[in-house]
Amino acid sequence: MYRFGILGTGRIGEMHAKLVAAQPDAQVTWCYDIDLARAQNTADKYGAKASTDIDQLLAADDVDVVLIASPTNTHVELILKAAAAGKPILCEKPIDVDIFKVEECHQKLQSFNAHIQLGFNRRFDPSHRAVQQAVASGGVGPLELLVITSRDPGPPPPRAILEACGGLFRDTTIHDFDMARFVLAEEPVEIYVMASNRVDPIFAELNDVDTAMIIMRTASGALCHINNSRRTNYGYDQRVEAFGGEGMVRSNNHRPTEVSHYNDQGTAQREPLEHFFIERYRDAYEGEIRDFIDRLEAGQPPSVTFEDGRRALILAEAAIQSFKENRPITINYEH
Amino acid sequence: MYRFGILGTGRIGEMHAKLVAAQPDAQVTWCYDIDLARAQNTADKYGAKASTDIDQLLAADDVDVVLIASPTNTHVELILKAAAAGKPILCEKPIDVDIFKVEECHQKLQSFNAHIQLGFNRRFDPSHRAVQQAVASGGVGPLELLVITSRDPGPPPPRAILEACGGLFRDTTIHDFDMARFVLAEEPVEIYVMASNRVDPIFAELNDVDTAMIIMRTASGALCHINNSRRTNYGYDQRVEAFGGEGMVRSNNHRPTEVSHYNDQGTAQREPLEHFFIERYRDAYEGEIRDFIDRLEAGQPPSVTFEDGRRALILAEAAIQSFKENRPITINYEH
Amino acid sequence: MYRFGILGTGRIGEMHAKLVAAQPDAQVTWCYDIDLARAQNTADKYGAKASTDIDQLLAADDVDVVLIASPTNTHVELILKAAAAGKPILCEKPIDVDIFKVEECHQKLQSFNAHIQLGFNRRFDPSHRAVQQAVASGGVGPLELLVITSRDPGPPPPRAILEACGGLFRDTTIHDFDMARFVLAEEPVEIYVMASNRVDPIFAELNDVDTAMIIMRTASGALCHINNSRRTNYGYDQRVEAFGGEGMVRSNNHRPTEVSHYNDQGTAQREPLEHFFIERYRDAYEGEIRDFIDRLEAGQPPSVTFEDGRRALILAEAAIQSFKENRPITINYEH
Amino acid sequence: MYRFGILGTGRIGEMHAKLVAAQPDAQVTWCYDIDLARAQNTADKYGAKASTDIDQLLAADDVDVVLIASPTNTHVELILKAAAAGKPILCEKPIDVDIFKVEECHQKLQSFNAHIQLGFNRRFDPSHRAVQQAVASGGVGPLELLVITSRDPGPPPPRAILEACGGLFRDTTIHDFDMARFVLAEEPVEIYVMASNRVDPIFAELNDVDTAMIIMRTASGALCHINNSRRTNYGYDQRVEAFGGEGMVRSNNHRPTEVSHYNDQGTAQREPLEHFFIERYRDAYEGEIRDFIDRLEAGQPPSVTFEDGRRALILAEAAIQSFKENRPITINYEH
Repeated sequence: MYRFGILGTGRIGEMHAKLVAAQPDAQVTWCYDIDLARAQNTADKYGAKASTDIDQLLAADDVDVVLIASPTNTHVELILKAAAAGKPILCEKPIDVDIFKVEECHQKLQSFNAHIQLGFNRRFDPSHRAVQQAVASGGVGPLELLVITSRDPGPPPPRAILEACGGLFRDTTIHDFDMARFVLAEEPVEIYVMASNRVDPIFAELNDVDTAMIIMRTASGALCHINNSRRTNYGYDQRVEAFGGEGMVRSNNHRPTEVSHYNDQGTAQREPLEHFFIERYRDAYEGEIRDFIDRLEAGQPPSVTFEDGRRALILAEAAIQSFKENRPITINYEH
Repeated sequence: MYRFGILGTGRIGEMHAKLVAAQPDAQVTWCYDIDLARAQNTADKYGAKASTDIDQLLAADDVDVVLIASPTNTHVELILKAAAAGKPILCEKPIDVDIFKVEECHQKLQSFNAHIQLGFNRRFDPSHRAVQQAVASGGVGPLELLVITSRDPGPPPPRAILEACGGLFRDTTIHDFDMARFVLAEEPVEIYVMASNRVDPIFAELNDVDTAMIIMRTASGALCHINNSRRTNYGYDQRVEAFGGEGMVRSNNHRPTEVSHYNDQGTAQREPLEHFFIERYRDAYEGEIRDFIDRLEAGQPPSVTFEDGRRALILAEAAIQSFKENRPITINYEH
Repeated sequence: MYRFGILGTGRIGEMHAKLVAAQPDAQVTWCYDIDLARAQNTADKYGAKASTDIDQLLAADDVDVVLIASPTNTHVELILKAAAAGKPILCEKPIDVDIFKVEECHQKLQSFNAHIQLGFNRRFDPSHRAVQQAVASGGVGPLELLVITSRDPGPPPPRAILEACGGLFRDTTIHDFDMARFVLAEEPVEIYVMASNRVDPIFAELNDVDTAMIIMRTASGALCHINNSRRTNYGYDQRVEAFGGEGMVRSNNHRPTEVSHYNDQGTAQREPLEHFFIERYRDAYEGEIRDFIDRLEAGQPPSVTFEDGRRALILAEAAIQSFKENRPITINYEH
Repeated sequence: MYRFGILGTGRIGEMHAKLVAAQPDAQVTWCYDIDLARAQNTADKYGAKASTDIDQLLAADDVDVVLIASPTNTHVELILKAAAAGKPILCEKPIDVDIFKVEECHQKLQSFNAHIQLGFNRRFDPSHRAVQQAVASGGVGPLELLVITSRDPGPPPPRAILEACGGLFRDTTIHDFDMARFVLAEEPVEIYVMASNRVDPIFAELNDVDTAMIIMRTASGALCHINNSRRTNYGYDQRVEAFGGEGMVRSNNHRPTEVSHYNDQGTAQREPLEHFFIERYRDAYEGEIRDFIDRLEAGQPPSVTFEDGRRALILAEAAIQSFKENRPITINYEH
């Protein structure tokens, strides 16, 4: 039985706690949040203890692992404390929006033999994962074109979240950068970005963009396109298409049902797509927790690493630079 | 070059004339109709001669074959005249709505070595035909269930047409009976029908039905379902589904384009289905004419025979009897 | 918190226990089975007590409700005991394969004010339910044609199960009869069946059939077709199509992912359908339990009643009679 | 009746001649080719005259319009001659692979009031056109993302064709550039290209590429992505997806039938896509000819102009420059 300490019990932490509790070999024993009432609220649901003192939680003898779902700017501190305490860590993405803090964390982690899994949950989505596996097993031959469509539903998140999130590329596209690395099985070596403000004035006010197209190239010449929007009026549009010398495999969108409607206005109409990540990636989040536990149980290293988090952020940094300087950027993974 | 006499230049005859003219090895040379202006109108489009005298047309030395597209109650007379004149015949379905006239025609035809192809055009629809071929080649293993969905768009045809058409089973379902025989590759031996009046009062007034469900059985135990409606508000719904021990093959609906729409009302919405048989079965009608010509050219017998027309009508008669007597009817193909 | 006694801890009981345990307001407190080891095995997973004594379980002060998932031939006895003990009941379908036992149970239940929900789980499948709701809300206009495709994957169940199950119509089609009643919102008044043996010799040996087509009629003239097979090589084929004066709504098949494959053999290929009811109807089973709890909590009667179970069985009996006598049978719901 | 002179009777000229002949208000009266036998062969099919002398054809009194389908490097000369002769022109794309020749032709044409329609046939494809119309009518709100997938089937064309075609961007992508301009309803102002050699060594030998990804930006900030491959093993992959503030509209691939297959290997499998442009864009080529005739008849200017051909080629030139210099290129339409 893996006893989880949940660090951060906002909406994402709540979701993780529920999924942990649903595993036959896991339970939530502690909840930490800076807001005690919020920690207590989640704790009560699972018969767990609540605390606003991270050290108390890490010192407790009934916490085997921690799951970090607190605000992004606290991740590095919590990672380092948990690593120092010898707890295996499942940490939400991104590590931080500041690449320098990430690099510093990277250095400090050298002294611990930390088991850290980064929360790139989409790798565990059964549909996207099937694409990756088809590619990895040679199902499309040598991969040549990878097209990732990744469009959030609207309206935009609240201003406070947008201000803290690091902008489109570090907050949202980072998932797509990780998906690209996951499916390509090769590092992108160059990136170019076009982006604009089409959705809501708030993005321009924050010096951010809301609409973007990216292309990347790997050393072998495989090409990858990502397109993003911060507002989609038909749901959360999440597709991955891998094309190669022997075929194509696609991961298409998800809907709540398999119902289609026919009338004099049109045919085969289905409902809007599942609204957002909590619905669309529910299976992925559960798969992520299962993979975390299963690998701990098997004594294996995590399948998604701190380094994966660092590299995805480096791609986000390069995207920002490409956009600002309007030129292709060669990726340097060693800062 | 096959020189066609078109017998009957109403809407269906017009369509056939156009398709004949589009063949590189065929031309329309004569048009016959009881309405001279109508015959002339079609004839003018193709540089053909017009006549209201069928004997004149059959005696002309520039008519190689005839295509009968006149009202159903004239088919038998025209078939017999054309057969007597030694002209190969492509005749629209049904042969007649009166099985006794059909049987009598059958007898009289014994004295001619007539080449008659019945106009069950759907056998030449590329989609339905692919279903038949998949079944015939063993693609679904032994055929067990055949489901035919066949629903006309609305509103209902004009009263005069409904009065002359012989009712739902002889007019419309007859195509489905032929499709069943085509795909089953076995004769139905028993039939049962439930039907009702749900679409328009005119059907009840004419002692006809507008909504029907049929099941049939073959000697080997394969089962076939047909469902019909005289009014579909999303277009002309035409599907064939063949299920067997090793899989299923389906022929799905056709639309004018491959466009789909996504918005806050729904996703993947396509336009209504192609409206009716002239649009939906355009390729089938052309394939039918090609098959007719190609078999003449190759000296082969027609692929869809008078006997196919007779048997489909016998199924329609059995359907009517089943509906009237509310009991399953054993099919007797030898009257 | 609703404390469940699980009666019968075979494969279906196990599945239910897991779903009960996953509800925030329910827990498994007792497990009953004639095989103690089996009961204990399930009980251990949920911190529950195990017993082979049904009376002990029903007398326990920590059982609020019971869920009956034992073999069908024990349902009536357990229903009556639980009803006598005043426990709300969620009982797997069918009530029994013997209509006389069901009628007798019906009589005896008059003396209790029993809360019994019948396990027609498919009513809670989000896709089928959306069809029912679209019909109920007038989305297709007056319902005219209902087509239910319901084909089990193969190979056939073990002989012992087939011997006890009451045959295709009482065991499998009973779900489709309930679905028909659910969507039609009208009672079928007449039924006709064709069936055959095409799948495996065991069905003929047991005097059962493995392949069937059914048509039914309601008083208003709506028509319903059901087709069944005991073996489908592409998965569990479960579709519902409702057609009416203003359109059509369809519930299509479910697959584990949304992935499609393209290569030189074909395009848009998806994986086989979800294998069988435990996978395909997982959400439906969970929805059923939620509905059971929610209605208890709200003080409402169950949404699927003993009477629904009785009527579905009457349809199955009529189907068997129709098949044996090869004639349409008028349904008599009052035996 | 519009009497067509067909200039160039290779495979494309043949196809055009057949489509012209199928129009009720058009006929093929002259065929020109440098190979007399080839011209004669086509001419014979339509009762036309053949010539290797372009001046003879242009002087004939039974040529109303010309259709230029000769090799690309002859287009400019033929356009100028036909324009001088006052014949309306339908000319295959591209005008030329040499932008300087195109500009020079542009200058010379100033002295004629020439009616020239450029052969961007895809604008007349019913599916792509429906996308353009949905966008133009506001169906997706302000256009933000346009994704064009355009992948040729393999194997690559013969070396001689590849040597003369001007490379991927001038030969193939030029259609996509025109489609982008057609749907965007705004000029691209900047372009960036990544491309590679993944398909066949011949492309590298010819200093060409076979695999490419492009992004473009308009002045208003709409973004457009194009991806290309010279080899697709599942058919000719041609899709257009337009995304905006109020939804998305997509034009999906075409297949010869609507048949799908289900078995233990997979479900819903369809056949490979239609092979290549002659099959896939048959309706588009016919629509192009109809539009050409209809506008002549109505006294309207052509809907696709020489200037459209020039601008698409300028985009191709910018793409090549972007690829060679590995930087985004600002488009200058005024050379």
